[in-house]
Amino acid sequence: MLFGASYYHEYQPYERLDEDVRMMREAAFSYMRVGDSIWARCEPAEGQFDIDWMAPVLDALHGADIKVIFATPTYAIPPWLYRSHPEIMTRRADDQHTRYGGRQNMDFTHPAYLYYAERITRLLLDRYAPHPSVVGFQIDNETGTGMSHNANVVQRFVESLKAKNGTVERLNDVWGLNYWSHRLGCWEDLWAPGLAGNLNPGYDLEWRRFQALLTTEFLAWQTRIVKEYARPDQFVTQDVVGGHGRGDSDMYDIAQVVDVLAMNSQHATQDGLTLPADDASIPRLPHWTEVGVWALSFKSDMAWGTREANFLVTETNPISVGGSSWTFPAYDGQWRLAAYTYISRGANLIAYWHWHSLHYGHEIYSHGILNHDFGPNRCYRELSRIGHELQRHDAILTDLTPDADVAFLYSQDSKYALENQPCLLEPGNARPDARSYQRIFNAFFRAFFAARAQAAVVFPTQELESFPVLVAPALYAADDALLARLVRYAEGGGHLVLSFRGGYGDEFARARWE
Amino acid sequence: MLFGASYYHEYQPYERLDEDVRMMREAAFSYMRVGDSIWARCEPAEGQFDIDWMAPVLDALHGADIKVIFATPTYAIPPWLYRSHPEIMTRRADDQHTRYGGRQNMDFTHPAYLYYAERITRLLLDRYAPHPSVVGFQIDNETGTGMSHNANVVQRFVESLKAKNGTVERLNDVWGLNYWSHRLGCWEDLWAPGLAGNLNPGYDLEWRRFQALLTTEFLAWQTRIVKEYARPDQFVTQDVVGGHGRGDSDMYDIAQVVDVLAMNSQHATQDGLTLPADDASIPRLPHWTEVGVWALSFKSDMAWGTREANFLVTETNPISVGGSSWTFPAYDGQWRLAAYTYISRGANLIAYWHWHSLHYGHEIYSHGILNHDFGPNRCYRELSRIGHELQRHDAILTDLTPDADVAFLYSQDSKYALENQPCLLEPGNARPDARSYQRIFNAFFRAFFAARAQAAVVFPTQELESFPVLVAPALYAADDALLARLVRYAEGGGHLVLSFRGGYGDEFARARWE
Amino acid sequence: MLFGASYYHEYQPYERLDEDVRMMREAAFSYMRVGDSIWARCEPAEGQFDIDWMAPVLDALHGADIKVIFATPTYAIPPWLYRSHPEIMTRRADDQHTRYGGRQNMDFTHPAYLYYAERITRLLLDRYAPHPSVVGFQIDNETGTGMSHNANVVQRFVESLKAKNGTVERLNDVWGLNYWSHRLGCWEDLWAPGLAGNLNPGYDLEWRRFQALLTTEFLAWQTRIVKEYARPDQFVTQDVVGGHGRGDSDMYDIAQVVDVLAMNSQHATQDGLTLPADDASIPRLPHWTEVGVWALSFKSDMAWGTREANFLVTETNPISVGGSSWTFPAYDGQWRLAAYTYISRGANLIAYWHWHSLHYGHEIYSHGILNHDFGPNRCYRELSRIGHELQRHDAILTDLTPDADVAFLYSQDSKYALENQPCLLEPGNARPDARSYQRIFNAFFRAFFAARAQAAVVFPTQELESFPVLVAPALYAADDALLARLVRYAEGGGHLVLSFRGGYGDEFARARWE
Repeated sequence: MLFGASYYHEYQPYERLDEDVRMMREAAFSYMRVGDSIWARCEPAEGQFDIDWMAPVLDALHGADIKVIFATPTYAIPPWLYRSHPEIMTRRADDQHTRYGGRQNMDFTHPAYLYYAERITRLLLDRYAPHPSVVGFQIDNETGTGMSHNANVVQRFVESLKAKNGTVERLNDVWGLNYWSHRLGCWEDLWAPGLAGNLNPGYDLEWRRFQALLTTEFLAWQTRIVKEYARPDQFVTQDVVGGHGRGDSDMYDIAQVVDVLAMNSQHATQDGLTLPADDASIPRLPHWTEVGVWALSFKSDMAWGTREANFLVTETNPISVGGSSWTFPAYDGQWRLAAYTYISRGANLIAYWHWHSLHYGHEIYSHGILNHDFGPNRCYRELSRIGHELQRHDAILTDLTPDADVAFLYSQDSKYALENQPCLLEPGNARPDARSYQRIFNAFFRAFFAARAQAAVVFPTQELESFPVLVAPALYAADDALLARLVRYAEGGGHLVLSFRGGYGDEFARARWE
Repeated sequence: MLFGASYYHEYQPYERLDEDVRMMREAAFSYMRVGDSIWARCEPAEGQFDIDWMAPVLDALHGADIKVIFATPTYAIPPWLYRSHPEIMTRRADDQHTRYGGRQNMDFTHPAYLYYAERITRLLLDRYAPHPSVVGFQIDNETGTGMSHNANVVQRFVESLKAKNGTVERLNDVWGLNYWSHRLGCWEDLWAPGLAGNLNPGYDLEWRRFQALLTTEFLAWQTRIVKEYARPDQFVTQDVVGGHGRGDSDMYDIAQVVDVLAMNSQHATQDGLTLPADDASIPRLPHWTEVGVWALSFKSDMAWGTREANFLVTETNPISVGGSSWTFPAYDGQWRLAAYTYISRGANLIAYWHWHSLHYGHEIYSHGILNHDFGPNRCYRELSRIGHELQRHDAILTDLTPDADVAFLYSQDSKYALENQPCLLEPGNARPDARSYQRIFNAFFRAFFAARAQAAVVFPTQELESFPVLVAPALYAADDALLARLVRYAEGGGHLVLSFRGGYGDEFARARWE
Repeated sequence: MLFGASYYHEYQPYERLDEDVRMMREAAFSYMRVGDSIWARCEPAEGQFDIDWMAPVLDALHGADIKVIFATPTYAIPPWLYRSHPEIMTRRADDQHTRYGGRQNMDFTHPAYLYYAERITRLLLDRYAPHPSVVGFQIDNETGTGMSHNANVVQRFVESLKAKNGTVERLNDVWGLNYWSHRLGCWEDLWAPGLAGNLNPGYDLEWRRFQALLTTEFLAWQTRIVKEYARPDQFVTQDVVGGHGRGDSDMYDIAQVVDVLAMNSQHATQDGLTLPADDASIPRLPHWTEVGVWALSFKSDMAWGTREANFLVTETNPISVGGSSWTFPAYDGQWRLAAYTYISRGANLIAYWHWHSLHYGHEIYSHGILNHDFGPNRCYRELSRIGHELQRHDAILTDLTPDADVAFLYSQDSKYALENQPCLLEPGNARPDARSYQRIFNAFFRAFFAARAQAAVVFPTQELESFPVLVAPALYAADDALLARLVRYAEGGGHLVLSFRGGYGDEFARARWE
């Protein structure tokens, strides 16, 4: 069991490595993640490298017996790369390139990006992979394409359609392109993807799948590079956005290309963790946020389900998560509640984002464990208590296998398809809710959780026949084979719970006619 | 009296023409509209034509004595046309061209579009106009420019200003261009239209009128072409958006260039049709939707009023209208309520959009009469009842003339002007409501309807002196001649009902000073 | 004490100069502002001048002993200038140039604009500055850059950063550019400003300051030109947006480059002026509007504070302010309430925007003193009463010095910084409120006002030690020197009232670590 945080020594406003490590050790922290945003620090100008500064950080952590996940720095590009190659910036559905000034703003399939990303990654791995503190590697960070419409991406998409379908007649058929006179005469007729223009659900579903595929392929490429440097005892992971995840990546597929899946799990706190939930007293939340103890379990069960194996929680709430207008530090005990919930559902690492509150940049008020004044505080003390408990009970808490009374079938395709054709309205207004799949799935999960049923999340390619109860909420987009399996499951005595829109569409997001 | 639906044989996922026609006949359907989206099906590549497939459709309908309106396919362009001529796509106020992937996305005044649209239209008319099933033609579909800012459109607009005004001094005067230093020194000084930049109400009113004029001219052009092929017993119609209509077309003007006006009338259902209205139980609706039985009458009276003649209802609610999050099938009896309301106000055709629910495309959940499974259902049975009733009572229900206790003066200019300078706030917030004219008009219409007064809608160029009561809600933009007529009307004993903002502006959207 | 309005003779739909002046005199108006939008009227084509028409206007006013502020016409450019130099239009954060059709749509730092603006300004000054009616000049109108991203502006910004910081290492340090790998290797690496891309708070704060600096520099440039023509007895003023002002200008700095500060103060009326405030009955207002009698005092105290001197109110509510959906004429007596409040807080001029309601243009329903029919009305009569009162009591009402029980420290930097990192949510939803500084400041001001405390507003560079109570709401961005002064103030016995976020950040919008 590892317990710790992300540590950004390079963000500290003054030198305090020894003091940081001392405070970590006192709180029984056993782990730190480093490196995920250091590209420009390590390569301040093209081809000029400065990476020695990381050695003392790793040495100091090692001296305190703190294990390290070394992250590749590829999700945040330096300004010189943007300046030399503006063509790599993500082109959005409106044909505008994303501006520099944030992060995850590039098309990571672009060869110019890949060239520079590989060079800095190999340099860092060559130097630091052998370090005795390093137990594993994180590739990139919460990766997703951001729905890249760059010309090279669109061209690859068209090629993938050719390879999959052979002729445009096949697309005319499965996408129903007689509708609105969209019938293709040749491949060149295919219009640009993206919701700026395209309104065809079948096309959109394929485009969404393709974006997720690009994400998986990029991470597989990084994994292969890292494996050239990793010792046999070092693992490779990627930290996905927990729960329903990003819309431009597929958690299940990503889990198959790494050794262990990590997830980042920001969650509601304070009255957002009462049980039973008291909705009226919950602070207003962005409407997309899952609120409640059930959500901690759901996210864990998603992560476990992808590989049916233990997983890591690389980022969860320290003092607060979010912006300056959104700071709800947990009540006493809620840090323990969350940590033990994750562990009970199979987590082998609990880590907070991040060690210290940043004094600059966009996330000044996404507070760390230490506040801006670096002094010990309530959060630090609460986490210290957890750290010491975990140290004491390491053996019995590691490698737990979560029980499951019921299984939930998760359908990424249905999530995509219901985002294109939402079946619910947003609460309180008349706009279609792009999160219809999520809301229906959550309602079922919450209900079983309230009934004290532990859950497994299964994915369509996995074995599901062994579960006594199988819940398939909003299973909108499913091929004949999957529906046949579900029929056989039910005929064989399985308890199959479906919802409205269940089995309504096929794998092309067509409504079924029989 | 015709009773039927739109029939998209080319959208069917498998061959079922005979079965469809059998079901139509059993339900006493006497009419189908075909052809409005078939361009790409008939011309899958430029100059390659494939139109024979329509013959068996018409033959089968004819065999069941089902009459056909043949629609020209011009509102939805094929992808090859977009690919060869991206310049024809509608240029919006922000100078971006509309993307391909929807429909009604082209500047229909562009010669490149007109060339190809005319060719496919003539080919289809030449072949199918003579078919014995065809009783009439629909030109295009719910036509409007979409506020085209293409260079050719803007240039024509400037030329029309020159022709109308002679000198820029005239515009400086009637648009008040000393304001904010906008005075023109020459025609080249005129800035681009559209709300992205222009804030002058007089300019905007003229620009809105011009867009509607383009729509009418396009439809007049199509009508002339169709007339070359039509038999004397065949009529030409256009299906406008019912009620207050589109903002880029003028229902009254369109009605003058066709033989008979058709309107599409999507309406609220379920508790949206109770009488008296129970607002609290009405499902949330897009705020622009007129809700209530009065709205069925209002839309009918608008359609009648344009020509003071019987009209067609080409598209109204089958199972449901709208997206997946918006499905409110009528209660039993409500289909009859709607149909007989339209008929009582002068409709000679009641048709549903559409025969079968589509399995692909953007409108999968704008359900047809048949659901996705094609089986008989409650809607089919209810409509079948209507069909048989109409068959039985055809003679007494056809060519009805609606009574009118009161007349409403409809002012398209006022609608435009109050969209530019709204006098109401949106319900529940502090934003100006671009639908101020509509809301004021509706409030008066609803009130008279609730008082059991039947209404005629009259337009400014029509005779209005014969009505005992004339209601002119929000008559904001009106020239001196119209105001003088109203004064004479009242002086002659007519009961004239005005509202606030009535008579406030002139035909240039200027506030009057005397 | 001057009392009057803005007079747009060039907007009148027919000749009525004598009648206007007669009505002004009858109501004891002693002042008119002219000229702020007349550029195109005076230069209808490039280099063609027509300015003689203004002479009879000034003569007539002079004949009635009405004093004139002559405004330079530079805030609204003629269409020919836009047509010849589209490059001068303001380039927004999204790289699009603002369209012509409104006003204040140009980059006023652009030499092409400056060339033409100077020429027309000098021509008008040369002719009319000597006129005996003219007591002062207004430069431009409610000036602000509109956040100009034109290339010349961005380039000047970078040069200013070089001058201020010397090396990029300094920026890497104070903006914390290791964060998200934004570290600069050279000046060319600096990415484009503006919230379209940049998420760095330190960068944003500097960019905001720079925009305000451009505004001040432009006004200083105009002042120097005007001074070449002004008699010693004529003053120069600029009318800023009152209260918290525009986000792209700094009221304090502007006040330092003119002889006297003027402010425009649109305020809520009707139940928005009850005391105590009855929030429930206040008409819905744009959420950014300060509502209540306290706001009249606050705006006055801001204006006074900038120079610790008397000020002018150049634009306040006649019949109504706002659009057609927003007309709330004051109750009887509320015009007096407002006027005497301003006077009691140091105003030496009360003027209404504007004399007559416009019949054209965007602001038809921002009614003047006269309505569209030009007849005497309730507003005219109420103002006439004020006019005569002021005439009678001129001596005792002019040059009043407002008392202050308490001082408020106003921090423009904090306003900017909290707009980037808002600490409040918008009322009723979960979006960060960009007006967090304003809301916190207002809450404190309102509370003291309710407790009958009169207030002074002071700015960081001013003397503040003499006040017994100093309130510094949301003083987020402040350098060490200012915090040290506050400490000394409190240690010296001053009553210092701070709020949350007070002293949290430094002058680079960094969170402090000690």
